Amino acid sequence: MSAKDLDCPISYEQLEDIEDDFEEADMELIRYQDKLTKDLYAKRDKIIAQIPTFWPLVFEQSPPEIDEYIQPTDASLLIGSLKSLSVERFELPEGDPRSIAIKFEFAANDHFENTTLEKKFWYRRAKDGWAGLVSDPVEIKWKSADKDLTGGALDLVMKVWEEDKAGKSEEETEAKKKLKEFIDNTGVDGASFFTFFGYRGRDISVEEDREAFKAEQEKRKARKEGKEVVEEEDEDFNDDEYEFEIFPTADDLAVSIAEDLWPGAMKYFIQAQELDAISDMEFESDDEMNDANDE
Amino acid sequence: MSAKDLDCPISYEQLEDIEDDFEEADMELIRYQDKLTKDLYAKRDKIIAQIPTFWPLVFEQSPPEIDEYIQPTDASLLIGSLKSLSVERFELPEGDPRSIAIKFEFAANDHFENTTLEKKFWYRRAKDGWAGLVSDPVEIKWKSADKDLTGGALDLVMKVWEEDKAGKSEEETEAKKKLKEFIDNTGVDGASFFTFFGYRGRDISVEEDREAFKAEQEKRKARKEGKEVVEEEDEDFNDDEYEFEIFPTADDLAVSIAEDLWPGAMKYFIQAQELDAISDMEFESDDEMNDANDE
Repeated sequence: MSAKDLDCPISYEQLEDIEDDFEEADMELIRYQDKLTKDLYAKRDKIIAQIPTFWPLVFEQSPPEIDEYIQPTDASLLIGSLKSLSVERFELPEGDPRSIAIKFEFAANDHFENTTLEKKFWYRRAKDGWAGLVSDPVEIKWKSADKDLTGGALDLVMKVWEEDKAGKSEEETEAKKKLKEFIDNTGVDGASFFTFFGYRGRDISVEEDREAFKAEQEKRKARKEGKEVVEEEDEDFNDDEYEFEIFPTADDLAVSIAEDLWPGAMKYFIQAQELDAISDMEFESDDEMNDANDE
Repeated sequence: MSAKDLDCPISYEQLEDIEDDFEEADMELIRYQDKLTKDLYAKRDKIIAQIPTFWPLVFEQSPPEIDEYIQPTDASLLIGSLKSLSVERFELPEGDPRSIAIKFEFAANDHFENTTLEKKFWYRRAKDGWAGLVSDPVEIKWKSADKDLTGGALDLVMKVWEEDKAGKSEEETEAKKKLKEFIDNTGVDGASFFTFFGYRGRDISVEEDREAFKAEQEKRKARKEGKEVVEEEDEDFNDDEYEFEIFPTADDLAVSIAEDLWPGAMKYFIQAQELDAISDMEFESDDEMNDANDE
């Protein structure tokens, strides 16, 4: 990274030191926000539980960063059976405020047996300096192969995950070959929203995270004291990405859901209501006040 | 708005009541963030003041919501002479935390005499229920007509503003006619970034803001108590927009600068450094470590 050799009297360590401080402040802010809004979200949940179309309409109005992943068949399923969504900073109050759990609840539907799908993202550090959200794949019990919106891909992810846990992570198994084929043949543009549940991210053990955290704290301390810190991590960043990732940007999507769709849900719902009113007006008389009753 | 007639047991008032609560929480969060980061920004300012290319590089890497407004001639001026940027929630601690001041400092340059351009946005309420950022136009002292990046438009804005203050707000003056012509002939795509300084937003007197605030508080109280609240505002929202607006989305741009470019400046700067390193590598040998010295 050339930032190490800035053409000025400032060292890379001084910039990193400031960034460390801002990161701490951001984490403190998420903690405070969580405390400040917990009861409000509970109150909101109670109200919107009485509006059956709430979450489907919110997803319909979701911003491009989310909407781009929702295929028409995904949308039908969401409209028909998404009952609720909730987001939790599940490692709070003690743990990392950036860890996110996203829970979807579904009514009975044609596609799968699950009534709840919960995807947890842990904020973790690797020993090469990488830090970010990692997850375990979540199984969806499809009612039949032709109801599987991911075309078998999510099942393959589960299979590979089981194989890895059984110590075959270095083996080139049949499931891995098929999964690789799926990934190579399907652009993210074409994959179902439900492949989101297959995201794993980097494989970081609890021990690795703990050691990396300790090492990072020591580095920060050294930077605070104005010492030069050796950064070995930068070169390997991209090489270590998990190669069988079915939905590589699921971590970004999780953040968009947690920081935009979830807090802004009421705004998106009201937008949907207004659009609905406008399209009613276009087709009907200008007797606007009775729109909702007309249907 | 059809949200008033939700097809369910929930009233529009109940939704608004929750939104009121969240708005209060958001304001409290901005206040806390300001307190938490004030010293950090001062520390950051001190460091980056020693990197002459810092802010020009940050603008070069700015996200699309900001970059789309920067024309090539604007970019040259920014690269050549932008010395610093700062953002302040200037009505804190007592006033509205959403009011934003954005200050640009410039080195001597070919285009204008000003060394500082400060644009203040006040968060204000109108009696019809609208609330948002309003501003006074800021004069730029161009060195000559052909150095004026806005092609005379900003001067016309100043003229119209002076006329309005002199009680001619209803008259169709020469300046207004010319300004209207400019607005009709220039898409936002073509206008200089510096027309940003001409934004006014709605004309809301201190008295109107105070009364609207009081009325809003009373409405909120009524909603909290579960009373039905008459909303007269919705119909007139768009009709009342200021018709001679030279940069209609300047309020959104101000928020993007305050909430993205300003807090994320270090990230954008490091991105610029990395891109620089990559393009150096493409043209030179793979002797990466000496990039910065090669120039």
